[in-house]
Amino acid sequence: MILRIPGPTPVPEEVAQAGAAEMINHRGPEFAELMGRITEGAKLVYQTENDVLCLSTSGTGGMEAAVANHVSPGERVLVVTIGVFGKRFVDIVKTFGGEPQELAFEFGTAADPNRVAEALAADPALRAVLVTHNETSTGATNVQLKEIAQAARDHDCLVIVDAISSLSSIPCPVDEWGLDVVVSGSQKGWMVAPGVAFISVSERAWEVQERCTTPRFYFDLKRAKTLMERGQTPWTPVVPVFFQLDHSLKLMLDEGLENIYARHQRLGSMTRNGVRDLGLELFAAAGVESNTVTAIRVPEGIDAKELLKVARTEFDTVFAGGQASLGGKIIRFGHLGYVTEEDVRAGLETLKGALERVG
Amino acid sequence: MILRIPGPTPVPEEVAQAGAAEMINHRGPEFAELMGRITEGAKLVYQTENDVLCLSTSGTGGMEAAVANHVSPGERVLVVTIGVFGKRFVDIVKTFGGEPQELAFEFGTAADPNRVAEALAADPALRAVLVTHNETSTGATNVQLKEIAQAARDHDCLVIVDAISSLSSIPCPVDEWGLDVVVSGSQKGWMVAPGVAFISVSERAWEVQERCTTPRFYFDLKRAKTLMERGQTPWTPVVPVFFQLDHSLKLMLDEGLENIYARHQRLGSMTRNGVRDLGLELFAAAGVESNTVTAIRVPEGIDAKELLKVARTEFDTVFAGGQASLGGKIIRFGHLGYVTEEDVRAGLETLKGALERVG
Repeated sequence: MILRIPGPTPVPEEVAQAGAAEMINHRGPEFAELMGRITEGAKLVYQTENDVLCLSTSGTGGMEAAVANHVSPGERVLVVTIGVFGKRFVDIVKTFGGEPQELAFEFGTAADPNRVAEALAADPALRAVLVTHNETSTGATNVQLKEIAQAARDHDCLVIVDAISSLSSIPCPVDEWGLDVVVSGSQKGWMVAPGVAFISVSERAWEVQERCTTPRFYFDLKRAKTLMERGQTPWTPVVPVFFQLDHSLKLMLDEGLENIYARHQRLGSMTRNGVRDLGLELFAAAGVESNTVTAIRVPEGIDAKELLKVARTEFDTVFAGGQASLGGKIIRFGHLGYVTEEDVRAGLETLKGALERVG
Repeated sequence: MILRIPGPTPVPEEVAQAGAAEMINHRGPEFAELMGRITEGAKLVYQTENDVLCLSTSGTGGMEAAVANHVSPGERVLVVTIGVFGKRFVDIVKTFGGEPQELAFEFGTAADPNRVAEALAADPALRAVLVTHNETSTGATNVQLKEIAQAARDHDCLVIVDAISSLSSIPCPVDEWGLDVVVSGSQKGWMVAPGVAFISVSERAWEVQERCTTPRFYFDLKRAKTLMERGQTPWTPVVPVFFQLDHSLKLMLDEGLENIYARHQRLGSMTRNGVRDLGLELFAAAGVESNTVTAIRVPEGIDAKELLKVARTEFDTVFAGGQASLGGKIIRFGHLGYVTEEDVRAGLETLKGALERVG
């Protein structure tokens, strides 16, 4: 089965095999070395000098950790949303007693930094800006994340970013853009299985963390930092995914970040051109289309579910459907991580074949 | 490296390989079938008709889920402790605003159900009893868990059990003993890598869950149940560990629960006899020694750290040290999961050799 979804993404055979290595003691020197290499590698991918912690959880768990460590009950924060995953940040903040002020942009568009600045100016009580870098649900990228972060810093707000489906595939230079807390997930451009969420924490975010009164235990980042310094994790880690990461980070750094970004740019562009050539429309607005996932409007008269089913059963290829209000309206074509131009061509052929079969 | 620690435990080669299978869509039919088989298998091991949920987290994450879904802020609960992991329950309850009343038994002993009943009678405000079935830190088993659960039910208290290092290796019949919420962890007797915590939830626990006001998102069990009924998990699951579980559960059910229990009983007994034959003393009191992990007192004049180091570097075998106040005082010899009599004999030989080398 060929995965053309925005995650989990295909895992190279050698990476999958690396995960099958003999089990080790998570409190011993082998694990400490493994963890040291992964942390170093992740910091290179994050382009940061900040701490980068590895949590054994999904991307959503990483988002919860970001909120539970940096947003206190009763605290007002601005959540900039452009899709389903932005709204997940709203839900998480609410759940833990924070007061999210949602600045919602239409699904398929990107956020406007000027409107972010206006919202921050209008409400000096806001303590943080939470924003999605790449919205997996709509295929749109917040291409002005740098400017959004600048607006937040101008108003002395912490910048908390969901970069789950972006950071390992498209540029997200954490230090250059001044991003305080940045979450990513192993099952995206990192080319490994789901199971690990990365989270980077800046100096000023640690200061907020110290004061944050939201209860947390499994997701307490201070504990994770203390143990990381001993080459450990507070709780038993998901060792096979760490084994895989150790291998995949070598592949990533061998390819080089610039080449990875260029490849995803090329794959995104190829996908969009191919989709248009099939007479289909993109869901994301021009100029903000994601280079990791393409959202395609389902043409009038076509049943999205049937299209996905035919692709899966007759072409052995899995695309993703639309989420929430986008159910039935779009399908999503993932092209992040372990993906080549040949894979994109094959995906487009499948799309064409399935459309002919259904329409 | 031979793992003779109480977790992570050795993973059979065929199980490790099963984890390297091609990645699948966690929202597709393949995952739904996989999850259905795992849930069915886990229910057999749990000996329960209750829901058994698979969370992508460590055992501690499972303990947090047990607390965050069933203990509300301000609520008084009895935490029966016999070691470090019991005290972890105290910490988790405190963290999330509950009021733990600790009933502490000396490290190395088991809890006395009569004293549990007395504590419950003395404080009718208590809403739940939290207890560790098998205390990994001391090598003692709460052999009267059934009676403790009965005392709790007599006082209309929920029974919340950490069975992380017991359930898959020694008898813990959830329904027969009336256990409401029971946590286990994949890296123990289940013979797979760390990454999944199981949690069973009884009907009356679901009623408490509905009313529980502790905030939770990643660990919300209602969400996990709703999604499980669709063959999914709320958040992206740690797929390779699910693959491994699918295979290891076949091995476990082929061996049969009674044979698994008998084997662990035999291995525990062999280990204890072997340790005594070496002139060493057990840490756990007579009659409550664990059949999954043996805690051994470090003889006067022997440096525990040195002993562990020699075992590791010269005999390729990892034992565990003591935790918290037991640091330097005991070493722990794990014999749970994928372990044979030959493995125990080899472990005892290593222990003998390392002692001669150090002492």
